[in-house]
Amino acid sequence: MDVTNGKSISLLVDDEPFDVRYGTTLEHRRKLDLRAGTLKRKVEWVSPAGKRVKIRSTRLVSFTHRSVAAIAYVVEAVEPVRIILQSELVANESTPPPPTDDPRVAAALEHPLVAESRDVEQDGAVLVHRTRSSGLRVAAGMDHDIECDAQLETEHEAREDWARTTVVTVLQPGDRLRVVKYLAYGWSARRSVAAMRDQVAAALTSARYAGWASLRRSQQEYLDDFWAAADVEVDGDPVIQQAVRYALFQVLQAGARTEGRAIGAKGLTGTGYSGHAFWDVEGFVLPVLTLTAPEAADHALRWRASTLDLARSRARTLGLRGAAFPWRTIDGDETSAYWPAGTAAVHLNGVIARAFEEYRLVTGDAELEREHGLEVLVETARLWASLGHHDRDGWWHLDGVTGPDEYSAVSDDNVFTNLVAAENLRSAVTACMRHRERAGELGVTAQEAAAWSAAADAVFVPFDEGLGVHQQSGSFTRLGEWDFSSADYPLMMHAPYFQLYRRQVVKQADLVLAMQWFPAAFTAEERARNLDYYERITVRDSSLSACSQAIVCAQAGHTRLAYDYLQEAALVDLHDIQGNTQHGLHIASLAGAWSALVEGFGGLGRDGELMRLDPVLPEALSRLAFGVRWRGRRVRVEITRDAVEVSLRDPDAADLVVFLYDERVELTAAEPVRRPVRERRPLLPEPTQPPGREPRTPARQAAPRP
Amino acid sequence: MDVTNGKSISLLVDDEPFDVRYGTTLEHRRKLDLRAGTLKRKVEWVSPAGKRVKIRSTRLVSFTHRSVAAIAYVVEAVEPVRIILQSELVANESTPPPPTDDPRVAAALEHPLVAESRDVEQDGAVLVHRTRSSGLRVAAGMDHDIECDAQLETEHEAREDWARTTVVTVLQPGDRLRVVKYLAYGWSARRSVAAMRDQVAAALTSARYAGWASLRRSQQEYLDDFWAAADVEVDGDPVIQQAVRYALFQVLQAGARTEGRAIGAKGLTGTGYSGHAFWDVEGFVLPVLTLTAPEAADHALRWRASTLDLARSRARTLGLRGAAFPWRTIDGDETSAYWPAGTAAVHLNGVIARAFEEYRLVTGDAELEREHGLEVLVETARLWASLGHHDRDGWWHLDGVTGPDEYSAVSDDNVFTNLVAAENLRSAVTACMRHRERAGELGVTAQEAAAWSAAADAVFVPFDEGLGVHQQSGSFTRLGEWDFSSADYPLMMHAPYFQLYRRQVVKQADLVLAMQWFPAAFTAEERARNLDYYERITVRDSSLSACSQAIVCAQAGHTRLAYDYLQEAALVDLHDIQGNTQHGLHIASLAGAWSALVEGFGGLGRDGELMRLDPVLPEALSRLAFGVRWRGRRVRVEITRDAVEVSLRDPDAADLVVFLYDERVELTAAEPVRRPVRERRPLLPEPTQPPGREPRTPARQAAPRP
Repeated sequence: MDVTNGKSISLLVDDEPFDVRYGTTLEHRRKLDLRAGTLKRKVEWVSPAGKRVKIRSTRLVSFTHRSVAAIAYVVEAVEPVRIILQSELVANESTPPPPTDDPRVAAALEHPLVAESRDVEQDGAVLVHRTRSSGLRVAAGMDHDIECDAQLETEHEAREDWARTTVVTVLQPGDRLRVVKYLAYGWSARRSVAAMRDQVAAALTSARYAGWASLRRSQQEYLDDFWAAADVEVDGDPVIQQAVRYALFQVLQAGARTEGRAIGAKGLTGTGYSGHAFWDVEGFVLPVLTLTAPEAADHALRWRASTLDLARSRARTLGLRGAAFPWRTIDGDETSAYWPAGTAAVHLNGVIARAFEEYRLVTGDAELEREHGLEVLVETARLWASLGHHDRDGWWHLDGVTGPDEYSAVSDDNVFTNLVAAENLRSAVTACMRHRERAGELGVTAQEAAAWSAAADAVFVPFDEGLGVHQQSGSFTRLGEWDFSSADYPLMMHAPYFQLYRRQVVKQADLVLAMQWFPAAFTAEERARNLDYYERITVRDSSLSACSQAIVCAQAGHTRLAYDYLQEAALVDLHDIQGNTQHGLHIASLAGAWSALVEGFGGLGRDGELMRLDPVLPEALSRLAFGVRWRGRRVRVEITRDAVEVSLRDPDAADLVVFLYDERVELTAAEPVRRPVRERRPLLPEPTQPPGREPRTPARQAAPRP
Repeated sequence: MDVTNGKSISLLVDDEPFDVRYGTTLEHRRKLDLRAGTLKRKVEWVSPAGKRVKIRSTRLVSFTHRSVAAIAYVVEAVEPVRIILQSELVANESTPPPPTDDPRVAAALEHPLVAESRDVEQDGAVLVHRTRSSGLRVAAGMDHDIECDAQLETEHEAREDWARTTVVTVLQPGDRLRVVKYLAYGWSARRSVAAMRDQVAAALTSARYAGWASLRRSQQEYLDDFWAAADVEVDGDPVIQQAVRYALFQVLQAGARTEGRAIGAKGLTGTGYSGHAFWDVEGFVLPVLTLTAPEAADHALRWRASTLDLARSRARTLGLRGAAFPWRTIDGDETSAYWPAGTAAVHLNGVIARAFEEYRLVTGDAELEREHGLEVLVETARLWASLGHHDRDGWWHLDGVTGPDEYSAVSDDNVFTNLVAAENLRSAVTACMRHRERAGELGVTAQEAAAWSAAADAVFVPFDEGLGVHQQSGSFTRLGEWDFSSADYPLMMHAPYFQLYRRQVVKQADLVLAMQWFPAAFTAEERARNLDYYERITVRDSSLSACSQAIVCAQAGHTRLAYDYLQEAALVDLHDIQGNTQHGLHIASLAGAWSALVEGFGGLGRDGELMRLDPVLPEALSRLAFGVRWRGRRVRVEITRDAVEVSLRDPDAADLVVFLYDERVELTAAEPVRRPVRERRPLLPEPTQPPGREPRTPARQAAPRP
């Protein structure tokens, strides 16, 4: 469901509604300005009755004023014309029924918001509603600055489900009407109607006091700071250049101001997945935010930690110890209905633990661990200890779990899950050594920590000796093959899970994700053979796959194929590759596009606290440059055909030790480090994909179907 | 939901309702007469006002008149008294809410029957309703023979949801009022209201024409014939003697007159499982009916065959070939909602195929196979062929299926499933050889049949070399152990399936059932070790377990333990061992009690077409005797402490070859065969059960809890 819509501004031009589907549109441009953080629209339009007007609008959702958005709307007359402008708040807008039977689309509720109060305030109004079933209170307000070269009249109304400010004027040629609409939102499960109304009214006053120019300026400054550290330059491919900046902007927008709230799979861009958050947050989005906007990563991790009590209670319900974080949630409670594809996907817990560790090691911040991270590591380690067991030979197993690949479920010894669990256990042990006292308060004994180490050291990683490849889980490589010759995609819409679960068919990177996250657990030869094997059976019916495949292909030296996957990940929404962008953006895939460039081609990694770089330039580009934040410094990496250059961006930055192609280099603010680019030679020929599931690149999308 | 209730007869004694909860009951007996097929009640009662009456009633549900039931109701006055007798039909009786949150109990619908017609006819009435959502038409009628030593008046009424015959009389001491109530039922998805009314009226006329005495006589004759062939004598344990006869009677009643309809898990004794049929039919009930009432087995198999088109369509839906019979059904459509515990339990198909084969080999009847069995065998073989696959070494596997044990799901190479599939494939091959032409019409080629043989011969049976026991499936013995020390039973009401599925805990005989059904697939030593291993982890939270454990324990020489399990199976409802007999009888467990005696202790089995007997007498008994029908003959087996005697019951029966303790003996009508009883020596000590899950025998139930 949508909150009260404040974007609505409609125009009557001599009593004819401005609508580009009628009349004549002489010019119509929309521009999302990623540097300014604004959406601009410019229209020149002739009404069916022949009246010509120019309209310009600029919208922003403020990064710096958390509850504020604003729209500057300018109408200019080309000939004398009567203008009626209606600026509205609209609650319970009827949403069109979803044009699909895709179960990932939530059923829309009818009239989800119950009106609680409506008030005309200053030059606008405030509406307060509450959600029908969950009882959350939602307040939305608008206020207006109105300037006009001509006389005008204004009127303000507020009803149960809408509020309206009406401006009436007659413009002469060249005259302008300029309206700045300030919007403010607030919500709470606890505060009263009056408190919510006052809160929103105050936010509006603050926004109007700052004014449009100031809102734009602080928006620009915020983004200047972000881009200065994080911009990615992709010379040689303007489509991907645009796409990756768009991706980074959307990831920032989804994560920048969550402050105690989850980052949904779709951010706030659509109603897909009902606004719920999954492992996407820690698995795909935070690796990017930690390196580009660490304060946003800090917020997201604090949100997760705030749900620890619910996760502890969930573990109790499941008969387990420690904390079991929810596979799907909006407020920390598990909301996934079908447990084999929800609760059983316990790897989420290790992914969360890893996100805390990455944040600590990349930012150098110790506070988050002290306040929250330690407890999360301890409780997730306890979960693993109660989930796993040692067999007669001593090996430690995790049975009956679901790994990342959603076309397999409830299987034993999923490699990704086992490795992420072992890492979690080891991280908990070392965290407890850093915080002995607090660990003692949490009840961690030497025996308990020793059991964690023993489990991690004995973790079983199933391997098929005959084929020389790892099992995704259990005896995966022994399962029957999938008949790709007659497959319809996405498979889950055409084949029963009974069949998908029992065959060698992979929805999304799983063993490949294990290789991305835990390269040291595999020899180079194993990595090459595993990639070759799993590429042939991976159908990418999830958008959480192409980015990982891009990274692992790049690492294996298949840079052409890696670049193809990068394109699929980066263009997922701009080209609507999954066919469901209408339900919201694929935030994790967009984050993954950045990772594909920086981790895949840039070769950015970590060795303890030290940055590692192993860069390579894809064939399609003449230059790749990117920036990351690392222990308070801004580091810039630039890769050309011949050389890689690494520099510190701030003149007063302290020195930094970096591994560049395994060489330990001392990076100083005074001078960049420059080295020749090394080639990556693949050990095996480029792997192939199931027929029809080659990477969906613009070139291949444009080609006629055979 | 219940159909229209015709049992209701109420009595006013000088205007006080006869109700044993009030007044004084001098005598009250109910007797289920298993030989007569009647339920008798005898009451002597003094009303709160001091009026004394004697009431006797006899009820029967006719075995010979399929749609008819009848009640003879006699009131005798001890002192002068005014009697009003109301005999009713009642539709949409309010059923009490289920006193449990057990998910196996269906939610009762409110007013499930919609009235369609009501008519007073002769000395009674006919009501026609249809079921609200499925639209089945249900007609119920009653008619009465009324005799009285005094003057009487009668009245007949019919309303939407009830009909009533009222008899008013004043009795002097010794006077009697005798009412015979005839009941008839009919239902159809197709016939009109008028047709249903006429059908039921005709059945009533027929019943009344035959009269009460004739109905009783034919009931008695039917049962005399049944018991003469099938009675089991258990000397030394009157409780079990009664229980096993009760069990056999209930199994007969559930199966005798299904004629085109399924045998529900509860027969017609309760609303548990919503009247649905499961694999219980072919897996537990038909092995008994085939040997004791083969015409009932024939009906049940013809019902199953009548659903073949739906099973074919279900296989298509699942992307499989052949036929996939429904795990849970009432009319042939799959109605199980949670596929890992429903659709994935494909072993049902092999169990159905086996029931056809058993019927053919035990009865010698070739017609059922020609008409239906061949097609069922071919289509189930095709299912297996499309479900399984050969691995790189040639072994044939079935992955992602659920075996009998409902605490495991979606696992690979369940031994029971693999063996039942292999048998199904081989049976299909030989059936096609017997019916070459018809097999050709069904499209079976030499290549297809060769593939079936190849799969059956290469079937993979997982074995744990380290422990020397078979895996129930996949790598079962490697899974974590269940903590039985703090277990609450039944586990599925206290622990999440996420935990049950991933541990070594067994709800019901699975590998043990495989040993019962396929003894030749295991060495004697493997059988002993497997039994020992699986007994320790089997909790019997299903009533489909004790009987199989009884049989396999008896075969392994653990006759004391076997007898304990027999008691649990036989007394499941008489002692309400599962605590849910109020929802209906456990028909399969009752059938299993008979099998425990006959197959377990009697050692009855089959070697091709030949009967095998390997009898042993349990310690608790001084004599065990039972009869079965075998290829048109009635065979009687009597086991005492010293000797076993096998005889043909009919003077003109043709000779029969039987294996008795591996000795090939020629059985003639002239003379029984007599041999000394052999001892069975167990290879291992008696196995143990999880704490608190020892067999629930009367002795143990009576003992105080520790």
